[in-house]
Amino acid sequence: MEGREISQAVIRRLPRYYRYLGELLENGVERISSNDLSKKMHVTASQIRQDLNNFGGFGQQGYGYNVKYLYTEIGKILGLEEDHDMVIIGAGNLGHALANYAAFEKRGFVLKGIFDVNPTLKGMTIRGVPIHMMDELEDFVKNNDIEIGILTIPKAKAIEVANQLVSYGVKAIWNFAHTDLNLPDDVIVENVHLSESLMRLSYNISRYKEEQKKSEK
Amino acid sequence: MEGREISQAVIRRLPRYYRYLGELLENGVERISSNDLSKKMHVTASQIRQDLNNFGGFGQQGYGYNVKYLYTEIGKILGLEEDHDMVIIGAGNLGHALANYAAFEKRGFVLKGIFDVNPTLKGMTIRGVPIHMMDELEDFVKNNDIEIGILTIPKAKAIEVANQLVSYGVKAIWNFAHTDLNLPDDVIVENVHLSESLMRLSYNISRYKEEQKKSEK
Repeated sequence: MEGREISQAVIRRLPRYYRYLGELLENGVERISSNDLSKKMHVTASQIRQDLNNFGGFGQQGYGYNVKYLYTEIGKILGLEEDHDMVIIGAGNLGHALANYAAFEKRGFVLKGIFDVNPTLKGMTIRGVPIHMMDELEDFVKNNDIEIGILTIPKAKAIEVANQLVSYGVKAIWNFAHTDLNLPDDVIVENVHLSESLMRLSYNISRYKEEQKKSEK
Repeated sequence: MEGREISQAVIRRLPRYYRYLGELLENGVERISSNDLSKKMHVTASQIRQDLNNFGGFGQQGYGYNVKYLYTEIGKILGLEEDHDMVIIGAGNLGHALANYAAFEKRGFVLKGIFDVNPTLKGMTIRGVPIHMMDELEDFVKNNDIEIGILTIPKAKAIEVANQLVSYGVKAIWNFAHTDLNLPDDVIVENVHLSESLMRLSYNISRYKEEQKKSEK
């Protein structure tokens, strides 16, 4: 595995394998063939074999995959065996939603603090995690060795705050602000641009309607 | 354009073009060359020309792109010239966050109603949009000709509610529940699986750390 470039398409699919294997585990399934996994996931069996071969396979001919082993190994590849300490910047509804999502913590994503500019929120907690004011951000990030910054603030402030976080030592940004951050190349950014997702939906609706019209002719 | 298959990769980029062109318009920019657009968007100029050629080009040699025209045309392609009536199922933090995001409405995504099972929310409103109980869902969707259902409920209920929405006539689902919905092929689904996004972030952190270690040797 070392030194090999895994394509972004495979990486995009890995969390989905992880989710399905987790569900199988919960249901007590110990082994699964690539064919059965393929039916569950609506991906071809050969795609599954190809994808998992990127990481050395894990399958035994005729026996299928050991679900727990595969789940654990994919978890390792995804970096889930380590804890990742996080802060959320922006205690609005979206910040609240993310702070309340306990399942992240099960996978090692540990929320250490939440930051906002609104003084009425000072000292409040969400699921036991305190809300701090922005002037405490620098010390907090440095003292707690925060790895991931989650941005749920309006785009006007997002770039400035992202640059602050990076200068305090944050390595990765999970960005919900509706803007690109243009950070240095060694900062890892994962964007969740919700309005773009909604536009893809609307694009597909338009395409569908067009095809309906054509088939009615 | 008719009858041509646009690749999913291009479709993924279109909303981003739309966002950038919108920002240019706000800043009073009337024309932009593919080179300048390329610098702004961190995409190669030839990629931009190729992408936009899928839709007939819009560029004039030597004059660059007319920003407003391109913005409008991409908006049409994305289906943004039509209104899309929506309901949100789940008035938790994420439902609130989406309901409060007024920018969606500017682009024709009109939130008509919010639904929840929690009786204490009955009759409340978010940004003027009322919260209804689930037993009103069928009539509401049918009477208001709702096109998009937004699911912000736990995965245990998501598949059942998605099927209900489809049976009431909803054509498209914007799914935030942590599960695949397995709906009929003619239903359009756009998934936002946040935990998968977070895992991609963590994967990239792991890769980065590995490379750091290697370069230190």
